[in-house]
Amino acid sequence: MQRTLARELRGRVGHPVRLEGWMHNLRRMGGIAFLLLRDRSGSAQVVLEDTSPLDGCLPETVVRVEGRVVEEPRARMGVEVRDARVEVLVPVREPLPFEINKGPLKANLDTFLDHAAVGLRHPERQAVFRIASAITEAYSEWMRSHGFVQISTPKLVGSATEGGANLFRVDYFGRDAFLAQSPQIYKQITVGVFERVFEIGHAYRAERHYTTRHVNEYVSLDMEMGFVRDHRDVMEALVAVLRHVFSALEERHGEDLERAGGRVPEIGEVPTLDFDEAQELLASLGEHPDGRDLAPSEERALGRWAEERGSELVFVTGFPTAERPFYTMPEPGRPDRTRSFDLLFRGMEVVTGGQRLHRYEDVREAIRLRGYDESGFAAYLEAFRYGMPPEGGFAIGAERLLARLLEVENVREAALFPRDVNRLRP
Amino acid sequence: MQRTLARELRGRVGHPVRLEGWMHNLRRMGGIAFLLLRDRSGSAQVVLEDTSPLDGCLPETVVRVEGRVVEEPRARMGVEVRDARVEVLVPVREPLPFEINKGPLKANLDTFLDHAAVGLRHPERQAVFRIASAITEAYSEWMRSHGFVQISTPKLVGSATEGGANLFRVDYFGRDAFLAQSPQIYKQITVGVFERVFEIGHAYRAERHYTTRHVNEYVSLDMEMGFVRDHRDVMEALVAVLRHVFSALEERHGEDLERAGGRVPEIGEVPTLDFDEAQELLASLGEHPDGRDLAPSEERALGRWAEERGSELVFVTGFPTAERPFYTMPEPGRPDRTRSFDLLFRGMEVVTGGQRLHRYEDVREAIRLRGYDESGFAAYLEAFRYGMPPEGGFAIGAERLLARLLEVENVREAALFPRDVNRLRP
Repeated sequence: MQRTLARELRGRVGHPVRLEGWMHNLRRMGGIAFLLLRDRSGSAQVVLEDTSPLDGCLPETVVRVEGRVVEEPRARMGVEVRDARVEVLVPVREPLPFEINKGPLKANLDTFLDHAAVGLRHPERQAVFRIASAITEAYSEWMRSHGFVQISTPKLVGSATEGGANLFRVDYFGRDAFLAQSPQIYKQITVGVFERVFEIGHAYRAERHYTTRHVNEYVSLDMEMGFVRDHRDVMEALVAVLRHVFSALEERHGEDLERAGGRVPEIGEVPTLDFDEAQELLASLGEHPDGRDLAPSEERALGRWAEERGSELVFVTGFPTAERPFYTMPEPGRPDRTRSFDLLFRGMEVVTGGQRLHRYEDVREAIRLRGYDESGFAAYLEAFRYGMPPEGGFAIGAERLLARLLEVENVREAALFPRDVNRLRP
Repeated sequence: MQRTLARELRGRVGHPVRLEGWMHNLRRMGGIAFLLLRDRSGSAQVVLEDTSPLDGCLPETVVRVEGRVVEEPRARMGVEVRDARVEVLVPVREPLPFEINKGPLKANLDTFLDHAAVGLRHPERQAVFRIASAITEAYSEWMRSHGFVQISTPKLVGSATEGGANLFRVDYFGRDAFLAQSPQIYKQITVGVFERVFEIGHAYRAERHYTTRHVNEYVSLDMEMGFVRDHRDVMEALVAVLRHVFSALEERHGEDLERAGGRVPEIGEVPTLDFDEAQELLASLGEHPDGRDLAPSEERALGRWAEERGSELVFVTGFPTAERPFYTMPEPGRPDRTRSFDLLFRGMEVVTGGQRLHRYEDVREAIRLRGYDESGFAAYLEAFRYGMPPEGGFAIGAERLLARLLEVENVREAALFPRDVNRLRP
C-alpha cells in the first residue's frame, strides 16, 4: 500500500490507508488510545485498540499505521483513522530535552538553540521556517518575472577592500582570504553584464557586539538593477517585491503564519522621510538624534510614527555621505547627502539600498577619498571603465524580515542555526 | 518616452521607441552607420545618419537611442530602428582587453577570468550564466512541487567533524571555525523536522590539487528526503529532477543553449552498474580499476559505454564502505558495500548520494569506528536519538552539471568568478 499524507486523509474517507510519521502524542482513554501522528503535511488522529507495539516508546518514535479513514467531527481534521494497526519503525527511548507536543514552546532561547535538532520539530518552529522558505520562493518569483538573472558570487574574497575590521579572516592555502560582507562588488559588476541581477546568499560580519538585532552569518536577499532614473526606481522595485512576498505568504501560507504568530503588515502608501526631516521629527518625539545615523530607539520611534499613518513600513532617504559606503551616489547639488535609503519594517531597518556611483572617474575618486587601496578594486573598476549605466540596488536581511513579520524580539529566532560571537553550534 | 527592450521591437513596427544599452558594435558604411545596441534582452540594429555624438567612443559605451521601428528583412531581428538620434550616457574611451563583439571569444581562460568583469558581457558567456540561473530555478521548482522545504544552513561550523584535512580554517573571534564541506549534517537533521529539504548554497573544499574538475568554492544543489525504501527512491527523485531541469532549459532557454553551445542530454532509461560490475567492465575496456573508487579516465570509459546504450547518464551503485563517508548505509548482508551512488553525466561524476544510516546506535558506532570525536556530533546525534526515519539524499555539483551540459573541459568555465588554489580574484 502506498503512503498517504495526513493532509490527504479528508479525501480518503472510507478507504484503507498507510500513514508514516512521528508519534507526536499518545493519549490513553479507557481501553483505547489516540495517537497523533505527525508528518510533513500536518497531523492525523489514529484510534488504537492495541498499543502494545508502542510499549516503552516515547514521543518522536517513528511509526507506520495502517487503518481505515472515517469522518469524525470531533477530530481536528474532521477525520480519523480507525481499525488501526501500528508498527514501530524507529523507537525513541529517551525523553526529549523539552516538550514539543503541548502548546507553545517553553524552552528559553539558548536551551532551544542548543537542542534545535529536535526543537525545530515543534509545529510552531516548523511553521517559521516554512515561511522562510516561502519568502525565498516569492522573492525569486518576482525577480525572475521582472527580468533579473540569479547569480552566485564568491564568499571567499582575496582582499579586504573596504578595510578589514568587520571581516572574518580565512587561511587560504597559507594566504589570507576573507569572507565577503556582501555581494556588492559582484552584483555591481554583473549589472554591466545582465542589467538586472539578484542573489540569495550568505553574508558575514565579524562584529563582536552581542545584540538581538545581529547574527554573524546571515542570508542576504540582494538585487541590483541598471538604467535607473535614481534611487526612487530601486525603492519602487523594493515595495513591489515586498508586496508580492507578503501576498504570496497570505495566499499560500496562511496556516503557517497563524501557527508561527506571523502577521503580514499593513502597507498602504509607504511614507518617505528625508534624513534631515527624520532628525527633526525624532527630536520632536523626545529622541536625541546624532545627525549621522539612526539608533535602534529612533528606528522604533519612526516605526510608531509611520504606523499612526497607516503603514508598517517607512523609508528614510538622504543619509549623510560620510556615513554610507564609498559607492553611494551623492545627491546632486547636495554632496553631503546621498541617494540612499533604509527601509524600516515595524521599527527596524531590514533593507538598505540606493543609487550607486556609475562613472569610472567618480568611483575611482571615491575609493581614493576613503583611503582604500585601489589595487584591491581592479575588477570592480574595470566594470566601470567599460561602461556602466546609472544603477542601484538593495539588500534585505532575510532573518530580520522574518523576525519583523513574526514580531519576535531576537533575530536568532528567525535563523535555523544562528551564528553569533558565542555560538558556533549546532 | 518609456524604454523599449530590443526583444520588444518586433511588436512596435511603425512606432517611435527609446532604446538604452551598450554600443556592442558600430559599422560605418558610406554615409550611414549601423549601431548594434545590446541590452538585457538581446540586441537591436539602429541606422544612424549622424554619428557625431559617438566620436571618440569605443565599444561598450552606454547609449540611449530614439527612433522609429521599421521592418527590415535583412536585419537579424527582422526590424531595425531608423530616423535615429543617439545620446551617449556613459562614454568608453579605452579599448577592451579582448574583443567581445566579433564571434567566439578568443581570450584564453586565465586572461578571460582576469577580465571577467567585462568578458562576461560576451553574448556567449552571458548565455552560460543565464542557463546557470535557469538551472537553479528549475531545480527549486521541482523540489517545491514535491513537498521539499528550502533551508539555509551555516557555512561557518565549529568543529572539523570528519577530520580537518580538506577544510578551510576561519579565525572566529580568536577561535577556530571552519567552512562547511557540505550541508550534510544539517540536511539530515532537518529531515527529522520537514522530511524533505533542499538547499542551494556554497560548499568549500580546501583541496590543493589543481585540476579541470575542481574549484574550491562551489554551488551544491542538495536535497535529503525521509521515509525512503532505500537509495533507489533517491535515485528516482534525482532522475526526475534532472528531467525537469533539462526540459525547462529546452523549453525556456533554447536560444541561450544554442549560443552557449549547450546540449541537453539523451536520457532514456538511465543504466545502473553495480560497483563490482563496473570494475569488471572497466577491466574489459582496458582500464586498470583499483577496486576502491573511479578514476577520471574510468568515468569517461563508463560514460562512453552508457552512450552506446542510449543514455548520457549512468549510475554506479554499491561503492565500498571504506571509501564512502561514515553516514553511508551499508548494503544489508554485504557490509563492505554501500547503498550509495554516483551519477556520471557524459563521463564525469556530477552527483553523489545514497541512503544514510538512520538508527542512533548505527550512527554512533560508525562515528566511533572512524575514530572521529563524538563530541563534535552532539546535535547530529540528537536528531537520531529522537527518531529519524529511513532517509537519503544527494548533492549535485552545479558547476559540473553546467560544464557537462556545455561540454566544456574546465569546470571554471561554468563558474562566474571561480576560486582555485591560485585564484582569489576577481
